[in-house]
Amino acid sequence: MSNKIIAISRQFGSGGHTVGKLVAQRLGIPCYDHELIEKIAEESGFCPEFIKERGEYASTGSWLANAFADRDYYGHSLQDDVWFAQRKVILELAEKGPCVIIGRCADYILEDNYDCLKVFIYADMEARAKRVVEQYGEAKQTPERRLRDKDKRRAAYYSFYTDRKWGEASNYHICLSTSALGIERCADIIADIYRG
Amino acid sequence: MSNKIIAISRQFGSGGHTVGKLVAQRLGIPCYDHELIEKIAEESGFCPEFIKERGEYASTGSWLANAFADRDYYGHSLQDDVWFAQRKVILELAEKGPCVIIGRCADYILEDNYDCLKVFIYADMEARAKRVVEQYGEAKQTPERRLRDKDKRRAAYYSFYTDRKWGEASNYHICLSTSALGIERCADIIADIYRG
Repeated sequence: MSNKIIAISRQFGSGGHTVGKLVAQRLGIPCYDHELIEKIAEESGFCPEFIKERGEYASTGSWLANAFADRDYYGHSLQDDVWFAQRKVILELAEKGPCVIIGRCADYILEDNYDCLKVFIYADMEARAKRVVEQYGEAKQTPERRLRDKDKRRAAYYSFYTDRKWGEASNYHICLSTSALGIERCADIIADIYRG
Repeated sequence: MSNKIIAISRQFGSGGHTVGKLVAQRLGIPCYDHELIEKIAEESGFCPEFIKERGEYASTGSWLANAFADRDYYGHSLQDDVWFAQRKVILELAEKGPCVIIGRCADYILEDNYDCLKVFIYADMEARAKRVVEQYGEAKQTPERRLRDKDKRRAAYYSFYTDRKWGEASNYHICLSTSALGIERCADIIADIYRG
């Protein structure tokens, strides 16, 4: 199987970003994560912080509030603008050449027309909580509470734009737990598959 | 990571059984699948056909019908008898030594007290439908319909006894699509992880 693009979906705090960077290093191809946010910012005119938040997460609040929030007369929301901008940027990057793309529903956006290896990276709650505190420091909420909130909002976003259940194995070609296998090993497995 | 047991959950028609057999061959350890059914039959006194059907699948019918079906005065069902018998057999096999165990919620039964690599094997609907017809022949229902029915009943069974969602990546350490990666490659990846 020869894959041109690797799309990595990941749980917050799972180390999916690091896995993506390592895979790209091993294969000598670019990895887009924060770079993606900057490109989407240029494309859409929104600020990077807004894109970071609204390009992967549903806003807080109930499902019903979300479904109708921020929508104009034509039923169009600011979040939809971010979605279309990031879809455009992801398709342009996929046209440019082999790469790793982290998050932002790239798995869904690229699957029909690109040779795309779809990967899901996750970890158990204990490992994720430890990583979140190490990387982002303590917060008012417990790390477990922050993670549950992130998971819920990311799942709602993914479901809204793809009509699929986030984290369901069958949406991906391979799913790897960094807490069970280690970050380096996950990167090795993905790079090996890419090499064919 | 050194794993004594490999528990393989699999979608019907995904080739998970073949992956398990290949992994066991590569590692020189036993693989229990049909053998498991015979042992559970001995343990419980039920016939193998009944165990095959009621040890992984909820019966057809509504959730409500299922919840109360076949239960005696104490709320105990024949399906529960099969569950306890297969739990006992799986724990005994895990005590005996390193092995591959296919299906029957072994991932859930062993996770707390054993060094158990939890694997989920799946494939896309097209590949599964092809495989089902090759292995079991044509039937009155389309293969897709048969698979959807099997999926639904297996998910209901898993959820009833484990209180988890079947096929959700985070229940496992690694999830592999045989239609994307190939059966041999899936076996190689699992055997490599087991070897450490």
